[in-house]
Amino acid sequence: MKINQGYLNLKESYLFSLVAKKVNEYKAQNPHKEVISLGIGDVTLPLVPAAVEAMGRAVLEMGRHDTFRGYGEEQGYTFLRQAVCAYYTQKGVSLSESEVFISDGAKSDLGNILDIFSPDNTVLVPDPVYPVYVDTNIMAGRKVLFMNGSDENGFLPLPDKSIKADILYLCSPNNPTGAVYSKEQLGQWVSYALEQDAVILFDSAYESFVQDKSLPTSIYQIEGAKECAIEFCSLSKTAGFTGTRCGYTVVPHDLIRDKVSLNKLWLRRQTTKFNGVSYIVQRGAEAVFSDEGLTQIIANIAYYMQNARLIADTLRELGVWLTGGENSPYIWLKCPDGMSSWEYFDYLLTNAGIVGTPGAGFGANGEGYFRLTAFGDRDRVQKAMTRLRCL
Amino acid sequence: MKINQGYLNLKESYLFSLVAKKVNEYKAQNPHKEVISLGIGDVTLPLVPAAVEAMGRAVLEMGRHDTFRGYGEEQGYTFLRQAVCAYYTQKGVSLSESEVFISDGAKSDLGNILDIFSPDNTVLVPDPVYPVYVDTNIMAGRKVLFMNGSDENGFLPLPDKSIKADILYLCSPNNPTGAVYSKEQLGQWVSYALEQDAVILFDSAYESFVQDKSLPTSIYQIEGAKECAIEFCSLSKTAGFTGTRCGYTVVPHDLIRDKVSLNKLWLRRQTTKFNGVSYIVQRGAEAVFSDEGLTQIIANIAYYMQNARLIADTLRELGVWLTGGENSPYIWLKCPDGMSSWEYFDYLLTNAGIVGTPGAGFGANGEGYFRLTAFGDRDRVQKAMTRLRCL
Repeated sequence: MKINQGYLNLKESYLFSLVAKKVNEYKAQNPHKEVISLGIGDVTLPLVPAAVEAMGRAVLEMGRHDTFRGYGEEQGYTFLRQAVCAYYTQKGVSLSESEVFISDGAKSDLGNILDIFSPDNTVLVPDPVYPVYVDTNIMAGRKVLFMNGSDENGFLPLPDKSIKADILYLCSPNNPTGAVYSKEQLGQWVSYALEQDAVILFDSAYESFVQDKSLPTSIYQIEGAKECAIEFCSLSKTAGFTGTRCGYTVVPHDLIRDKVSLNKLWLRRQTTKFNGVSYIVQRGAEAVFSDEGLTQIIANIAYYMQNARLIADTLRELGVWLTGGENSPYIWLKCPDGMSSWEYFDYLLTNAGIVGTPGAGFGANGEGYFRLTAFGDRDRVQKAMTRLRCL
Repeated sequence: MKINQGYLNLKESYLFSLVAKKVNEYKAQNPHKEVISLGIGDVTLPLVPAAVEAMGRAVLEMGRHDTFRGYGEEQGYTFLRQAVCAYYTQKGVSLSESEVFISDGAKSDLGNILDIFSPDNTVLVPDPVYPVYVDTNIMAGRKVLFMNGSDENGFLPLPDKSIKADILYLCSPNNPTGAVYSKEQLGQWVSYALEQDAVILFDSAYESFVQDKSLPTSIYQIEGAKECAIEFCSLSKTAGFTGTRCGYTVVPHDLIRDKVSLNKLWLRRQTTKFNGVSYIVQRGAEAVFSDEGLTQIIANIAYYMQNARLIADTLRELGVWLTGGENSPYIWLKCPDGMSSWEYFDYLLTNAGIVGTPGAGFGANGEGYFRLTAFGDRDRVQKAMTRLRCL
């Protein structure tokens, strides 16, 4: 029996374990100091009432003979796929139900989608980026190229036509940088993909944080994107579903490669290796997309975005270079005084009791940068900003 | 961009769509005749009260600031992994928490586990069998060999040492045949796997239906199995979770291939391409494993097994050859009078208004056989048996 050799080429990531180790050491040495974490990418506000009520009803339905539900369709219940289509209609994007696939989250789909592509494809990934894009391709033995994000391009790399790629990842609003592509910039990527016969894997997990109405919240707002892009989204950050688990993936019928519909390939993948998301969770997700649910989640997003503004404003006051924080829950800053990511991590922890995430954990170009997140409690964010000002 | 060519080698399965088409045609032509389905593999009894109450509480927790839960560990909450370990302790199998991985169901894990193995492995699959074992390997381009089930071996093929295989599938109690390997027979498979350095993928999804205490309900009840087997199980049939979605996979620490721990590889796969099961569902699953939950699900299983006995007894009375039905919710019968699977399907539907599943849908050796399931309502099962006797 031979194991998948791709796994042996993976680098172990010690990012979050090293963060935890350093925090624990600090706490042991400073038992009376309050540590404030602005490092995690997890939400803290509870689920909105619309989702809670819908899931409570669904649980009861599952306990009664006349309303019990067994297997649903692997690609999700029609009621939820229709709700997603209606959400896209508000963005000016017209989708058919059969282009929407419900899943347990964008991370699963971003990993599993690669199953429908040959290992013999070249992948183009921004650096810095969510590490999963790289690892999932290393596992499959694909060649991975990087496109460089930097303060010069605002961490929004644009196509270089001299580089050939088959599969490319875009994440906008970006994790970790919080930078958001404009429609014109995404248009350049769509043109590049169409010319190269490439497929864009577009991660829109943070779309609901976009405040500037001129910025795209779906790649399908760009002409031609349905012929070259798959979009991944999730309720994790939009509606606090990180522990409830529901996402959706759009594979347009117009997306054809090797004369084969990628929608049909993905349907085949999902019907063979997946059995759908819990009915209870799908009812919760449906409720998020109701008028009531949308009003409630917008209030939560506004809370986080006010945190983001507090952080970004403070950093600007202090003369720190940053991106993100305006249309994203992430603030990406240049470590002051030429400090490395980990030097700044230690500096912030030791001098202000603040925990963030070293940019080096997101790729080589993240070195010298640092990520702060807006998902904390307001009081603690304010306290952290006071500490920053006093440094 | 090149697609995964393995997908082009898949055969489309028209089994259930053809069944549905024929049933719909019959209903259109016979609008006043009641059709009784003994064909589906889906449960019909609602979730047990213990699970409903636990999930109801969990939903409320998710709606409150102080009890809200974000991301959990990808491999599942400790409370549920401990409950699974305790369930195994009752079987005489000792597992550590870190050998148990919680997932959204056995179908997902059975497909996804293949990610950790090289495509360059030979796979051995029983015929007839759950079609997903074959399709997932065709997708990956693996060579698939078959071991023949027949009435002569009671649809329980045993190892042929002249055949070399790297990965082999066993499903006991079997879907579709309902046949169950004895400990001695499983021991032969464990010896074969250890000699060949192969890995057994053991699907125990129907373990809770085993009534005969001398039969194994986990492959780890066989000595040496922890060095050669991964076990997949699910609450789908055990506790009616087909629409609620929760399963678990056991990868023992003793399972090493190419000097690499398969437990570590699977952990790496799951932490990279999965984000855990909904907290709400995990609380429901935990409740299933409580004393109260186990008592309640045993009552449901007894209901289904009484259906199975009714079906099997009727068929035996009628002189039909069959296997299954005693330790499994499936009854696998030889079509009378030399009929083919589809001929018998048409015969049963037309003359008795009964729907079953043609054995040919589960592999070449299923031709001439037929699957009936015990998941229906008692009244309708009894009515169907009366009709069978009157044929």
